[in-house]
Amino acid sequence: MRMVDLIQKKRDGQQLSTEEIQWIIEGYTNDTIPDYQISALMMAIYFKGMTEQERADLTMAMVASGDQIDLSAIDGVKVDKHSTGGVGDTTTLVLGPLVAAVGVPVAKMSGRGLGHTGGTIDKLESISGFHVEINKDEFIDLVNKNKLAVVGQSGNLTPADKKLYALRDVTATVNSIPLIASSIMSKKIAAGADAIVLDVKTGAGAFMKTLEDSRELAQAMVRIGNNVGRRTLAVISDMSQPLGWAIGNALEVNEAIQTLKGEGPEDLTELCLVLGSQMVYAAGQAETLEDARQQLIKVINTGEALEKFKTFVAAQGGDASVVDDPSKLPQAKYQIELPAKEAGYVSSIVADQIGTAAMWLGAGRATKDSVIDLGVGIVLTKKIGDEVKAGEPLAVIHSNTEEVNHVKEELYRSILLSKEPVTPPVLIHEEITE
Amino acid sequence: MRMVDLIQKKRDGQQLSTEEIQWIIEGYTNDTIPDYQISALMMAIYFKGMTEQERADLTMAMVASGDQIDLSAIDGVKVDKHSTGGVGDTTTLVLGPLVAAVGVPVAKMSGRGLGHTGGTIDKLESISGFHVEINKDEFIDLVNKNKLAVVGQSGNLTPADKKLYALRDVTATVNSIPLIASSIMSKKIAAGADAIVLDVKTGAGAFMKTLEDSRELAQAMVRIGNNVGRRTLAVISDMSQPLGWAIGNALEVNEAIQTLKGEGPEDLTELCLVLGSQMVYAAGQAETLEDARQQLIKVINTGEALEKFKTFVAAQGGDASVVDDPSKLPQAKYQIELPAKEAGYVSSIVADQIGTAAMWLGAGRATKDSVIDLGVGIVLTKKIGDEVKAGEPLAVIHSNTEEVNHVKEELYRSILLSKEPVTPPVLIHEEITE
Repeated sequence: MRMVDLIQKKRDGQQLSTEEIQWIIEGYTNDTIPDYQISALMMAIYFKGMTEQERADLTMAMVASGDQIDLSAIDGVKVDKHSTGGVGDTTTLVLGPLVAAVGVPVAKMSGRGLGHTGGTIDKLESISGFHVEINKDEFIDLVNKNKLAVVGQSGNLTPADKKLYALRDVTATVNSIPLIASSIMSKKIAAGADAIVLDVKTGAGAFMKTLEDSRELAQAMVRIGNNVGRRTLAVISDMSQPLGWAIGNALEVNEAIQTLKGEGPEDLTELCLVLGSQMVYAAGQAETLEDARQQLIKVINTGEALEKFKTFVAAQGGDASVVDDPSKLPQAKYQIELPAKEAGYVSSIVADQIGTAAMWLGAGRATKDSVIDLGVGIVLTKKIGDEVKAGEPLAVIHSNTEEVNHVKEELYRSILLSKEPVTPPVLIHEEITE
Repeated sequence: MRMVDLIQKKRDGQQLSTEEIQWIIEGYTNDTIPDYQISALMMAIYFKGMTEQERADLTMAMVASGDQIDLSAIDGVKVDKHSTGGVGDTTTLVLGPLVAAVGVPVAKMSGRGLGHTGGTIDKLESISGFHVEINKDEFIDLVNKNKLAVVGQSGNLTPADKKLYALRDVTATVNSIPLIASSIMSKKIAAGADAIVLDVKTGAGAFMKTLEDSRELAQAMVRIGNNVGRRTLAVISDMSQPLGWAIGNALEVNEAIQTLKGEGPEDLTELCLVLGSQMVYAAGQAETLEDARQQLIKVINTGEALEKFKTFVAAQGGDASVVDDPSKLPQAKYQIELPAKEAGYVSSIVADQIGTAAMWLGAGRATKDSVIDLGVGIVLTKKIGDEVKAGEPLAVIHSNTEEVNHVKEELYRSILLSKEPVTPPVLIHEEITE
């Protein structure tokens, strides 16, 4: 096999075989195929796309390129949820205890990473004593016992995907649906998921800006999953504004607690019910999505969901009393209101910029070495469509420094008002179940 | 400027600016832009093409990447001819003396290279004593005095083009008209041409297999030339069979001498008149192509063209008496006929395979270190459309070994006969003059 012939084959719109894709990914992983041939292939894929078979083959070739987590010692269908990212997305914190409370095992591997706020692990570390330094056996035992545990990502998962992504990032080939879909799916499958639920964000604050692109990506991932024997469903949800009220680590933990109590923000609650229903359904613990939803509402109302969160936190060394007394979470020194400069209706909340403002306060990592300030962040008090009086707060800035003028300015640039009434955005655009 | 943004720009079908193209080519030449970004750009160009302005800019950026030959000390318009390659193409050997005889200066730089036969220099070295080891001043003096001299290529011309070509060769991006056109034109311009005549071959034996592709390439090059101030014309000529009769070094010199006498093969003579007319016209030495053609016919008929060849050969140390006695050229030990196995009409002569057979005899270089056997080669005795009796020779093999069965077999596979009469191919498909 010669790489140049395979590039040409794809360039000319022909389908690469399973063996050819395996050969390419193996060769790239072990450095026998150079970057310059792979980047030409990526650009050819950008223009010519990939068939369903090619996408499945690429996904599984990337899975095979590194370690694969074996979760077979955990009883039941292991469902993993993935979000294509957004700002103030507290769903993971809510969904773990929520679906675990109805009996779905959640064996969550999570990272820290760069971003507007920390990762799931950083957020949970807002809770005094909570830690993820548990070994694989403890992790599996905890999931079998409590249906929920979180551990830091370990092992060399999908090295081919990491290498490919770094190359695509500098060769203008990131934005290709088959490549994005295979990348995401390979990571979930290598991490041991039997079934996968995808939250594909759409709108100004999301990676996919249009509903059409989001739908294409969601469908692509659902097809890959089902073609490689992993039951996969997807939700296309709005990211034209941040989800919920809070952007920040301890702030989001608090918001998750409120949501598990049934007192959370409406949009976050609804999205968690939709995603949670898919997880319960994919795990085979409900006949229909509606049946799954009723089970979830029940465990919120009975307090079982909140109780599950406490059990989970305590099992990993955390102070579960924060659930009843969230003031024990790290608090920022200053709470500074952002008053509306004039009356009107909120017409736009640019999620990216709000996230950037939160990062300036110290809520996220700009570089690997940044230290996260767990107490700080931003709490929105208005969402798109809300009426605002002049001087009424649009948001509250939680900061450990008193001088926050640059943050305020960024927020004023991000939260726009209109004189005319504004229709709030639709939260759930679509569900893709096959 | 960031390379990834420029790749994206081209990927999205936008035009790169003159400055952007210069920046890319400079960066690639001096290794600040890596192969993997350039190969992605090349693939984007493969799919999105380049505007006329971009092609001109790329050409001139590649010219600027290395040395540029200064021929301004030579009087008159320096016209260079370029052929896109083929088998048994003796036009360069004929055209030099032919157009020099009507007063057009020909300052020919030539290489040796790999191929079915040697390059122009190898062929001329069939003439005892002929050499190209002359310095730049001698070269210019000779052209000013005799209107014709040949020198080996020196200097570091278009290094960007060399690097790009090597990369395109392994990334399936060779076959892009804008890239091919810019590559060819950059080399001619860097070599000092004021005006350029292009012989674009079409057909089975050519790089461009279809007339449509050949026309597109010819037009692309003519446009580039005229857009960068070099008067450029092109001929699209047939390469569905080898040109002339001879494939081999001394054999082609002999054929060139016959052609300059007016006794050469019909197709070679005609193509030399067409290309020669364009050269004379481009040099501003004729009002019309027809006027130019009459001047060329005249110098053949008066013997001035042949005389010019003698003067040129003698001026570079060669034994000009070979012109009157071609038996002084290197001769192969054996002349072996290839008899037709049956009667019929020649329907196909696969030029590539004939060339390969000539290379097996030793006429060309397979690798840089191969030593060329100047006397060997193949002389066709039939061309497409000719009637053949069983046992009548199709070709004569000039070999220094008696055992040539593999060559014979290759030739039988290459020269195909039909029971039905066959129409010979059209030699000149088109002339592109603007």
